[in-house]
Amino acid sequence: LTTPGKSAPAVATTTNIATSTPDDVTIRGKSLCRDLIGKVTFTEMAFLQVMGSLPTPAQTAVLDACLVTLMEHGMTPSVIAARLVNSSAPEAMQGAVAAGILGVGSVFVGTVEGCAALIERVLASSDTEAEAARVAAEHRASQRPVPGFGHPLHKPDDPRTACILRAIDSAGLAGRHVAALRHLAFAVDQAAGKHVTINATGAVAAALGECGIPASIMRGFAILARCAGLVGHILEEQRTPAMRAIWDAAERAVPYAR
Amino acid sequence: LTTPGKSAPAVATTTNIATSTPDDVTIRGKSLCRDLIGKVTFTEMAFLQVMGSLPTPAQTAVLDACLVTLMEHGMTPSVIAARLVNSSAPEAMQGAVAAGILGVGSVFVGTVEGCAALIERVLASSDTEAEAARVAAEHRASQRPVPGFGHPLHKPDDPRTACILRAIDSAGLAGRHVAALRHLAFAVDQAAGKHVTINATGAVAAALGECGIPASIMRGFAILARCAGLVGHILEEQRTPAMRAIWDAAERAVPYAR
Amino acid sequence: LTTPGKSAPAVATTTNIATSTPDDVTIRGKSLCRDLIGKVTFTEMAFLQVMGSLPTPAQTAVLDACLVTLMEHGMTPSVIAARLVNSSAPEAMQGAVAAGILGVGSVFVGTVEGCAALIERVLASSDTEAEAARVAAEHRASQRPVPGFGHPLHKPDDPRTACILRAIDSAGLAGRHVAALRHLAFAVDQAAGKHVTINATGAVAAALGECGIPASIMRGFAILARCAGLVGHILEEQRTPAMRAIWDAAERAVPYAR
Amino acid sequence: LTTPGKSAPAVATTTNIATSTPDDVTIRGKSLCRDLIGKVTFTEMAFLQVMGSLPTPAQTAVLDACLVTLMEHGMTPSVIAARLVNSSAPEAMQGAVAAGILGVGSVFVGTVEGCAALIERVLASSDTEAEAARVAAEHRASQRPVPGFGHPLHKPDDPRTACILRAIDSAGLAGRHVAALRHLAFAVDQAAGKHVTINATGAVAAALGECGIPASIMRGFAILARCAGLVGHILEEQRTPAMRAIWDAAERAVPYAR
Repeated sequence: LTTPGKSAPAVATTTNIATSTPDDVTIRGKSLCRDLIGKVTFTEMAFLQVMGSLPTPAQTAVLDACLVTLMEHGMTPSVIAARLVNSSAPEAMQGAVAAGILGVGSVFVGTVEGCAALIERVLASSDTEAEAARVAAEHRASQRPVPGFGHPLHKPDDPRTACILRAIDSAGLAGRHVAALRHLAFAVDQAAGKHVTINATGAVAAALGECGIPASIMRGFAILARCAGLVGHILEEQRTPAMRAIWDAAERAVPYAR
Repeated sequence: LTTPGKSAPAVATTTNIATSTPDDVTIRGKSLCRDLIGKVTFTEMAFLQVMGSLPTPAQTAVLDACLVTLMEHGMTPSVIAARLVNSSAPEAMQGAVAAGILGVGSVFVGTVEGCAALIERVLASSDTEAEAARVAAEHRASQRPVPGFGHPLHKPDDPRTACILRAIDSAGLAGRHVAALRHLAFAVDQAAGKHVTINATGAVAAALGECGIPASIMRGFAILARCAGLVGHILEEQRTPAMRAIWDAAERAVPYAR
Repeated sequence: LTTPGKSAPAVATTTNIATSTPDDVTIRGKSLCRDLIGKVTFTEMAFLQVMGSLPTPAQTAVLDACLVTLMEHGMTPSVIAARLVNSSAPEAMQGAVAAGILGVGSVFVGTVEGCAALIERVLASSDTEAEAARVAAEHRASQRPVPGFGHPLHKPDDPRTACILRAIDSAGLAGRHVAALRHLAFAVDQAAGKHVTINATGAVAAALGECGIPASIMRGFAILARCAGLVGHILEEQRTPAMRAIWDAAERAVPYAR
Repeated sequence: LTTPGKSAPAVATTTNIATSTPDDVTIRGKSLCRDLIGKVTFTEMAFLQVMGSLPTPAQTAVLDACLVTLMEHGMTPSVIAARLVNSSAPEAMQGAVAAGILGVGSVFVGTVEGCAALIERVLASSDTEAEAARVAAEHRASQRPVPGFGHPLHKPDDPRTACILRAIDSAGLAGRHVAALRHLAFAVDQAAGKHVTINATGAVAAALGECGIPASIMRGFAILARCAGLVGHILEEQRTPAMRAIWDAAERAVPYAR
């Protein structure tokens, strides 16, 4: 890794992602200065950083569609936590972002992974339609919601789902993951005896799967999208703080069914 | 550090707090197994861990009074953040506690440090009463609140302050820090032309100062007290979740003066 | 709760833990100012906050022993994270503590909960010894470690375990949870064909169980203990920073078996 | 906002960023489904979210260059914290990302804000060159480094700086902020009596300034870039964990000058 006449680079053996020399940083085998800055978008760079190679234009388009979809959805619990922390500790914006990210867990966005796992289970079966029916029946029997399906506000259909599926089609990436998601959707409707929407996290699960992104890291992309959303809310909180209004309202709120 | 016949202990040269051998852990020069477990309270152990020696009974009493005072104050922004994160990511309680702790910043509890800094400034002066008057006048002139003074609910006097001052007196620890706080209180009232309470964080600043705890780490004790408070709220959130009620209320809340 | 002539207190209906009036804070039905500050230790107050009633002296002794045990164990991953964050963002100590707490997850301290769940499974059985044997056999068959058993450094026996068990005995609290732990220990040794230590987290699981603390909140007490440990490391990091040394060492470290 | 025959949408009055109806999400006045998903890149969407309007192509190019530059720089303290937390609590990836983000504080990336503040000070002066000289002289006199200048590895010149300045030029955005940065660079060299590089954070401060992004939120964009970097390290940690190697190395590390 050393070049004669240069001082030895710092060799980082605990990671294979990047190495630095005085006059460049090499990331995933590419020169940051020659190949990346000014040459690739943030989305392409994020894909390179995580997956190890640059995305195709089709993968970039689909990943952009997913990240754009997940960035913002109003005053969510994650956003509220970030805003309260920011107005309590304005000296450290990183704390507010961190608090918001800590809310990107299993209940809301974690359904991306849950749905991706079901898609993988269906794809691993020799009879995908029968397996989808089994998945739906099992959830129905145990009265658990199927991850990636249903939405309290966006019904009968989550409008974001259609946009993501369209982006996958336009990119020419629709394949096994989308097919498995459609099998699941059919089976979920049959089991419920009514139409249940594929929600945005279900569509994202299929989309990221078609991009070759493993289920174990999908939550990371959701966190990335929400991170940008949180920064927007923190600037708004800096300018027109909602902390005291939220605090007052939370103190007075009456919990359900108590 | 090694003993013949024993396997070599892990030698930690980046810290002087603790070392381990197979049959003991040595913390601040004391044997965890012989001297500490079953022998000291959590408060004594925390003082040892941070300050390097066990506290006197007087220091323990005053530190206990401060920690008990700061643990709980209802549905604060920090608590709301922790509860929202817990119900969003119940798989990771540590995330909920972390989110709550991130709200222990400069605005609320940071006033302990701010007041401690003023106490130190007064104590460094040759004429403490005149210096206290200067502090009060400066804050008055720039319309900034004096850290450790005033409270929106607990007025005319913060009842916790009297309790902490009484605990300091009972322990026989009242000294220069309490005297400086009283000089500041007199000067603040004079400058305001009316009575302004010493709040709990002002009393804690003097109390921890009398215990020999440096201002730079005082926030750590406030975080510790709040940590216990947060655990209580997380168990309540597990049993009777308030997340959806808080979320709904926050969405509908109307910010002040908008 | 209201006093004639005073403005109405803020009523917090989302929580039943505490309410405030201008001249007191009521926590779990007790007056903070009359009953708690200067009257109870931090450990007693933490038990009250979480469990809803003050502990007996026996419960206090056992809880103190557990918290003292878990506070400090040298330069752990959690401590390293806290120190790196503190030296990267010294403006916000709460961020350093939060980062350290985020490392109190399933791998290290989470074994408290894992062991508590096994104890509860054994206790729910009509034949506790047979159930303990089944637990050990199942883990052996799937080559999973039994939570609460084994330690890389503290062998053949974890010295902290004996201390905690002694504290439980001294307090007169040894009961069904300790008995179940001993059944498990016997069965684990039999299944392994050699002695495997009960480690500190196993002993803590039984101890907190004897105190009446539910498994679902046990991690909270571990977090509380580690919180105090982290504050000690942060003060040491303020005075003699180890961040650059850790950073350099981490860059140069060679992972196992790579 | 309501449509006849539909249930009323949730109206979020604590934020002006977004509102939802059953069949769309409106963000900054744009339809998520018609205008944004599949139409804009993540970088454009992030700018819209934070700044309130879509960026020009020039702004997008410069923002992409900054985000690409800041994403990855090897095994930094922030990355180490994230990896340690991930391997300690693999059940909650959001905790690992949060821990890493907590390390994006004043010491490393905060220099973006520090340099931006100096640029704003220079720009507010009637004689920008003289003001730049005063800034450099003040820092020299108090032996403080000038934020945005100097780098331990990347010398005599930080190669990333040239790339960012080139991206600003190519976009036609070079203006007052870049001019002020160049005045500062000249003055810093003069005061030091030798060449000191503008580092990447100095170049980013000027670049984001030319994009119209206020200094108070610049750290948010740095956090966003690092967030993507952290996700890459977490996937590598999932596959080839470095936690134990880092832990061992940290325990054995010898701090400087101790």
